[in-house]
Amino acid sequence: MKVAVDAMGGDNSPRVVVQGVLEAVSEPGVEAVLVGDERAVMREVGAGGLPDGVDLHHCSEVVGMDESPLKAVRTKRESSIRVAFELVKRGEADAVVSAGNSGATLAAGIMILGRLEGVERPGIASIFPGQKKPVVMMDVGANVDCRPFHLFQFGVMADAFCRVCLGVDSPAIGLLNIGEENGKGNEVVRNAGELFRDCPLNFYGNVEGRDIFNGNVDAVICDGFVGNVALKLVEGVSGAIGRFFRDELLGSVQGKLSMWFGRRAFSRFFEKYDYQVYGGAPLLGINGIAIICHGGSSASAIKNAVKMAARYAATGVAEKTAGAVASFGRS
Amino acid sequence: MKVAVDAMGGDNSPRVVVQGVLEAVSEPGVEAVLVGDERAVMREVGAGGLPDGVDLHHCSEVVGMDESPLKAVRTKRESSIRVAFELVKRGEADAVVSAGNSGATLAAGIMILGRLEGVERPGIASIFPGQKKPVVMMDVGANVDCRPFHLFQFGVMADAFCRVCLGVDSPAIGLLNIGEENGKGNEVVRNAGELFRDCPLNFYGNVEGRDIFNGNVDAVICDGFVGNVALKLVEGVSGAIGRFFRDELLGSVQGKLSMWFGRRAFSRFFEKYDYQVYGGAPLLGINGIAIICHGGSSASAIKNAVKMAARYAATGVAEKTAGAVASFGRS
Repeated sequence: MKVAVDAMGGDNSPRVVVQGVLEAVSEPGVEAVLVGDERAVMREVGAGGLPDGVDLHHCSEVVGMDESPLKAVRTKRESSIRVAFELVKRGEADAVVSAGNSGATLAAGIMILGRLEGVERPGIASIFPGQKKPVVMMDVGANVDCRPFHLFQFGVMADAFCRVCLGVDSPAIGLLNIGEENGKGNEVVRNAGELFRDCPLNFYGNVEGRDIFNGNVDAVICDGFVGNVALKLVEGVSGAIGRFFRDELLGSVQGKLSMWFGRRAFSRFFEKYDYQVYGGAPLLGINGIAIICHGGSSASAIKNAVKMAARYAATGVAEKTAGAVASFGRS
Repeated sequence: MKVAVDAMGGDNSPRVVVQGVLEAVSEPGVEAVLVGDERAVMREVGAGGLPDGVDLHHCSEVVGMDESPLKAVRTKRESSIRVAFELVKRGEADAVVSAGNSGATLAAGIMILGRLEGVERPGIASIFPGQKKPVVMMDVGANVDCRPFHLFQFGVMADAFCRVCLGVDSPAIGLLNIGEENGKGNEVVRNAGELFRDCPLNFYGNVEGRDIFNGNVDAVICDGFVGNVALKLVEGVSGAIGRFFRDELLGSVQGKLSMWFGRRAFSRFFEKYDYQVYGGAPLLGINGIAIICHGGSSASAIKNAVKMAARYAATGVAEKTAGAVASFGRS
């Protein structure tokens, strides 16, 4: 599978993007096209030139991190993010990875590849490391004002994603809420609960903030406002706790000894709770595969995202999601 | 100041409640009335009897943790939570503390003490330990469907609370959102942002999930759905991280050595990030003082909540909040 990678996206592009791509293609079955400014990209590739399995597709424009997504995608026809999707559209690549402006990635994905038949709102799914197994949360930012049926369709898409891409047999779907009982929550969520209870998905029921990671569910459904707040809160809290221990422990000899003796636990912690392990967040509901990476992604995060994109593209998840959406009908 | 404490509320009542109250009244200026079943309470008090500064007010009913709040408060006229508020109403106590059914505490507070003049929606404020200073978040569960003006009034009430109770001079108020720029977020939040930008509060602007605790703002405003998800998520994430290190480190000799050498950092961590330090969440916008405690509160959390309630009652925060609300006008 060949992944079109937005070489110009992200805080440290094209350097870390190129690095991540060169690492990813050393795996069997992974090829990539670096999409971006030829000179800037080749400077990072170095004297050896592009290895086997990596192409370069030059384009002259870049969407900045702070640009208005829709406008930028409409007007910058030669931008790396837009061209990456066009390569998929033309069949020259199988998936897109971008660490650039995530709104623009979303907009370009919808505009160029189109929605899957029957999907009202494509969304962004994020994969969190749970205590026992990964948990998918959808939506984490694409749709801030949702109707109940939108939440329901996020559930259908997350279910298909868990089955096809994560190999979960009968994914348990939870609805993010502020209490476990039916009837809790705001109007949209209460009505979404009714839709879930009346359908053949394996609906677990409501889950609260504290239960997202405890392993009871494989996917947590919420609107993009709540999901985005939650995603960034988890990042913020685990970051703050990490910094707290670093500052406290590095400040004394005793603390340094503690870190040394506990080094296995600390490294397992960073391994387990590092979002970069998953590389990025898949965009679900479009006619193709796209992975949105954090702007601050490291080369290793990009590498994982490219491998993930190639793996997902091989599963035919988009077609299978379309089938599931069709089988559950319309709003 | 005399605090009416719901002796029957919480997972381990009346034991931990009585214990917490007995510890709290050893502080100067703190008195309490234990409201609940006389025999059950006196069994916990022990042979010495009630110390100076603690009264008992018998009542025969209890609102269960799973009862429907409104119905329970309406029908159980002799319930401990309702009677506690009635003591404040009659001037026999100055504040209420309850670790019982939080919906019932909210309902009883509004029903018996009433809203402050001009307040459309009273709400629950939670005080988080931030990285540099405490952060107040409001609302964390009372109002799941809000209009922009409700969010604006939460800001006015949180501002008064920070000034009067936490001694912050010109509290910076942040609006919880999914991006920093104006124009981000869902419709309600975008319109609330307009109200904040047009008023004389010290409005910081939008804050994202990852920035809640970084010290830029003194209060974070959100609706009760988002706030409740966030509150429980923070509890869940810090609990999971705590358990991870405990399990990892206690499982080996090296790990135990790490814990021993790092014991100062670990105990400072639990001190700093333990919600029990703050004891409970003040209910803002009612005609009086009430603190809602976590159902699983320890005696030490109850003690801190009782001291906090006595301190807040002495400040006249309710009257000052009413003044602020009046000065900012109506929707």
